[in-house]
Amino acid sequence: MAKSQEEQHPVKAFGWAATDPSGHLSPFNFSRRETGDQDVRFKVLYCGICHSDLHSIKNEWGFSTYPMVPGHEIVGEVTEVGSNVEKVKVGDKVGVGCMVGACHSCDNCVDNLENYCPKLILTYNSINTDGTITYGGYSDHMIANERYIVKFPDNMPLDAGAPLLCAGITVYSPLKYFGLAEEGKHVGIVGLGGLGHVAVKFAKAFGAKVTVISTSPSKKNEALEHLGADFFLVSRDNDQMQAALGTMDGIIDTVSAVHPILPLISLLKSHGKLVMVGAPEKPLELPVFPLIMGRKTVAGSGIGGMKETQEMIDFAAKHNIKADIEVISMDYVNTAMERLVKADVRYRFVIDIGNTLASTKP
Amino acid sequence: MAKSQEEQHPVKAFGWAATDPSGHLSPFNFSRRETGDQDVRFKVLYCGICHSDLHSIKNEWGFSTYPMVPGHEIVGEVTEVGSNVEKVKVGDKVGVGCMVGACHSCDNCVDNLENYCPKLILTYNSINTDGTITYGGYSDHMIANERYIVKFPDNMPLDAGAPLLCAGITVYSPLKYFGLAEEGKHVGIVGLGGLGHVAVKFAKAFGAKVTVISTSPSKKNEALEHLGADFFLVSRDNDQMQAALGTMDGIIDTVSAVHPILPLISLLKSHGKLVMVGAPEKPLELPVFPLIMGRKTVAGSGIGGMKETQEMIDFAAKHNIKADIEVISMDYVNTAMERLVKADVRYRFVIDIGNTLASTKP
Repeated sequence: MAKSQEEQHPVKAFGWAATDPSGHLSPFNFSRRETGDQDVRFKVLYCGICHSDLHSIKNEWGFSTYPMVPGHEIVGEVTEVGSNVEKVKVGDKVGVGCMVGACHSCDNCVDNLENYCPKLILTYNSINTDGTITYGGYSDHMIANERYIVKFPDNMPLDAGAPLLCAGITVYSPLKYFGLAEEGKHVGIVGLGGLGHVAVKFAKAFGAKVTVISTSPSKKNEALEHLGADFFLVSRDNDQMQAALGTMDGIIDTVSAVHPILPLISLLKSHGKLVMVGAPEKPLELPVFPLIMGRKTVAGSGIGGMKETQEMIDFAAKHNIKADIEVISMDYVNTAMERLVKADVRYRFVIDIGNTLASTKP
Repeated sequence: MAKSQEEQHPVKAFGWAATDPSGHLSPFNFSRRETGDQDVRFKVLYCGICHSDLHSIKNEWGFSTYPMVPGHEIVGEVTEVGSNVEKVKVGDKVGVGCMVGACHSCDNCVDNLENYCPKLILTYNSINTDGTITYGGYSDHMIANERYIVKFPDNMPLDAGAPLLCAGITVYSPLKYFGLAEEGKHVGIVGLGGLGHVAVKFAKAFGAKVTVISTSPSKKNEALEHLGADFFLVSRDNDQMQAALGTMDGIIDTVSAVHPILPLISLLKSHGKLVMVGAPEKPLELPVFPLIMGRKTVAGSGIGGMKETQEMIDFAAKHNIKADIEVISMDYVNTAMERLVKADVRYRFVIDIGNTLASTKP
């Protein structure tokens, strides 16, 4: 007879889970595996709320399984390491992002691009190699193979650093891969949310000239004064858009709603690159002629590999880059999700798991 | 009072022109400029018929001016050179492709990418620096600044080499730029027409593994036996397409009709590139999620710069690459256009201007 998840995973765990597509989260007892030779177990202190947590708990992408413990911007303190673990020791501050496993033998894994491995195991709502379902960071502790453990530098705050594990690497990786992480490049950032606000910070740290492109003029001051962008474009203002035609080397588009991309393609110089990191549910309209006339590119990019994620956190620590966050308690999570639907957060909720989870235990 | 085109351009010329959007071509007397210091004048011997000639004479892109002398796959023999010309001498075999001018000072021009210069002057239906309209190669002679003159290697036949000046460079340039011109790469070619058939030849010469993707199973033998492709995929055959998922490093898509690109994106490996060189009139549907999941790219590419065009012709001569052509006489051109609408040509019409134009003079 097949073993239950609890039998296979004998270590008791507690967190908050969604139990159906209403997406309502509530306290949940579950279990995690024993510490294997290459595993790192850590007490969760903070976990960011990513917009994809919201999509997932409501089954908006159609592949949710319940109960689901979301959370893939997880940081905490190591409590136990397997006998072969070399990367970290008990007491170290560490993080886990969007993934906890991959095949480790395909071309992508060999190239440290586990994020593009066809056998990628996501941090939650995914199937582990032992057949069990993965549970995320809205929980008291976490365990993962050391390959998926990111070491937090001493000067990186755990709360404001947590969102970098997803939002940070999602924008850092394409800036590097598409040749935009260079002094003097002109980079556009579309959408000033969880991803967009850290994209501005990374692009500036790379020495790029940064233009924020947004539908809402009200974000201008925030973009220029607070985040340090060089320019601000209101995408609905034709005069502003006309004046900026053909000026950008690349654009990171963080918008996950359906939107027109011709105006963005028009902002690119010849050979410029529009990189989509938000995934609209329906296809976008792609005009081909403007691509041909300037050898332009529309591409996608999804998070980043573990080696690059560590590089990103180290770079962020060195350049004092962190997410702008609102720290909440565990029992506020359902309200936070409602506010997230309305984009009512500047810019990322982070749950103070360490101080507020235990008291919610029934 | 402004000078007429004939006054500015005192050298008599004769060709065939379309005079209205019916696209019907007929004999036409016009004139060309005197030979400037950097100009090369040549007697036209052959001119290929590109599909864009057909679009242009019928004003299908909306920016045609009449009378229009089409033709931008032009080869012939030099009859006169300006005092500063260094590239060629009288008697040399030369060609002119899609363009005859650009600003020569922008970043693209400095990088030998005149094809992406905002002030690009096309070989016909474009406005010259002196304000006159450019006339193409369906004519007895041609003149151009030496920068736009391609030297034909001795062993490159003029008739079968002519189409390379447009069709050849259009596929050669993206194969190089997008990293597909390498031994062992797996390259897909969509559409087996004027562009597609030379794309197969170039990709094979670069050492790539080549798969032709076509809607019509009837082209299989032609692709494999005659053109030397390694594999043939019928795009409507789900089993074949499924079996080829995720196998290609890049795809050159030559189809200029609206068509679905998700099946093509699905054929790409992670980090693969779908390059559009045909320009459908309406936007295509772009699904973003599949791009993100594999960091895939959809890009456009338009012809190539003059330096690369010369490199392409030299490479083609060295590897015995030429277009497959049907040579026609000048007075057959309207029939050829009708056949081109039905794709009834294998693969490119080339007009024997040298032997058949003069007799059509009224």
